[in-house]
Amino acid sequence: VTIDELIDMVKARRDTGTLAVACPYDAVTLKAARDAFEQEIARVLLVGRAAEIERCAGENRIPLDGLAVRETADDTEAVRRAVEACAEGEARMLMKGTIETSLMMSTLLHSPMRMIAEGKILSHVAVFYPPRYGRLMILSDAGININPNLNRKVQIIANTIEVARKLGIKRPRVALLAAIEKLNITKMPITVEAELIEKMGKAGMLGDAYVEGPYALDNAVSMEAAHIKHLSGEVAGKADILIAPDIEAGNILYKAIISFTDLTLASVVVGAKVPVVTPSRADSEKTKLASIALASYLSA
Amino acid sequence: VTIDELIDMVKARRDTGTLAVACPYDAVTLKAARDAFEQEIARVLLVGRAAEIERCAGENRIPLDGLAVRETADDTEAVRRAVEACAEGEARMLMKGTIETSLMMSTLLHSPMRMIAEGKILSHVAVFYPPRYGRLMILSDAGININPNLNRKVQIIANTIEVARKLGIKRPRVALLAAIEKLNITKMPITVEAELIEKMGKAGMLGDAYVEGPYALDNAVSMEAAHIKHLSGEVAGKADILIAPDIEAGNILYKAIISFTDLTLASVVVGAKVPVVTPSRADSEKTKLASIALASYLSA
Repeated sequence: VTIDELIDMVKARRDTGTLAVACPYDAVTLKAARDAFEQEIARVLLVGRAAEIERCAGENRIPLDGLAVRETADDTEAVRRAVEACAEGEARMLMKGTIETSLMMSTLLHSPMRMIAEGKILSHVAVFYPPRYGRLMILSDAGININPNLNRKVQIIANTIEVARKLGIKRPRVALLAAIEKLNITKMPITVEAELIEKMGKAGMLGDAYVEGPYALDNAVSMEAAHIKHLSGEVAGKADILIAPDIEAGNILYKAIISFTDLTLASVVVGAKVPVVTPSRADSEKTKLASIALASYLSA
Repeated sequence: VTIDELIDMVKARRDTGTLAVACPYDAVTLKAARDAFEQEIARVLLVGRAAEIERCAGENRIPLDGLAVRETADDTEAVRRAVEACAEGEARMLMKGTIETSLMMSTLLHSPMRMIAEGKILSHVAVFYPPRYGRLMILSDAGININPNLNRKVQIIANTIEVARKLGIKRPRVALLAAIEKLNITKMPITVEAELIEKMGKAGMLGDAYVEGPYALDNAVSMEAAHIKHLSGEVAGKADILIAPDIEAGNILYKAIISFTDLTLASVVVGAKVPVVTPSRADSEKTKLASIALASYLSA
């Protein structure tokens, strides 16, 4: 599926699910929620100080009709109650408004409602469709996990495999990215980690997926590049999932796609009971809509 | 200047200089050298076992007329004599043929002809022109320095500044890339390194250039993204030079541009007395030609 098809699939559903938005006091957040509502991608529950929500709506001429508003005394309560709405099944997606991402994440992590299952972690996944390769690709982690250890890296991979499967990829091909294909034990520890994780994959510890690495990016995505290098793995040139070696490489790859291509990147934070959308001011309208659509799709 | 303009500028020169090619026994290398010769981007000196060169030329129907051939007994001698030709001024660019890049680099490093000045290091620079931003950008290091320490990072930067200046950028703007703009002392050491290097730059230790970091990629290249984030540095949204935090991020950024855009990346290894071209089988014809043109331009 392409990103546009993903959006259309969500629109075509009878039940799009409710998006709980914590502290929608800025135009970016409120407009994204309004657009999602109008395009029938989600129903919307705005949670926060009602006066602030109304001020923002008024200043930016964003109609509030059709959107539910839940008043709270302060922002900490707003985040908590937005999370509660998700825990109780009233909403099935969460969106961050005018608050720090870290407040949202720590509220999820420490919620008494057990929003994160035992052994799971939160991670960022970005989904895009490069027409040159004719398939959806999932990139992780571009924004949440700093210096993940082996165990957390495996959880990041598990989260992306779950996303891939929901997107219809039955046996996802996971590429563990590095600067080269070869193992370099003394100088490039990330190639050793990739080799270890590949072994875990082959031993069946990562479920029904092909997990291989290290791969340079071109040899993971392009059959032609993989062929020239005589790489014959199951993932060579066919990767559905791109696992960045660290947050710097993940973020730079994500930003390279934003900065140097016209592709739409839909991104959500997964690993909690509901997907979390963290729109950025720099995102295009299309990106924000695609991210909410992805959240809606994953939460069904 | 765009990459095409760079190629045209080199073609328009009366003296294009000679490219010494070590061990041109494969079609990729020999074809690149032939194309550069025919398009008047370089004169060519092929160094190696003559029988192998002729076999390759015959099998791939690449004419050798107009190209000089210097016979050597073996490949180690070929690399040494290609380097000597550069040291003695007979050639002013070097190209790697059917040998490991590491053999080429160690021959340069250990040459008795002092091919690398005191305190300098070899580093990889890639030059591209994204029309969206209307300026040439230089990315480093995508392929040579693994885990550079602070001193080597500074040398990588010095090398790119020299390249930028030769390309007509009088006071280059250098962005030290990371996942975010903020200093994160406890969790992201690369942001601390960026802050240190920025201080060195402000103290004038890096010459006539603006050096700032950490920057996320989008905020380094795009004025719009920098504006949204209220970043006001001299480099914000205006970077000419992108310094990757490590070889993984550098290589992945380089490969992202190759894999997801149609931009031509010209790349050379700099830091020695002559630029070194290391063509890859996966490079397009245009990329190889652009890389030789860049080498020629830098060596004038």
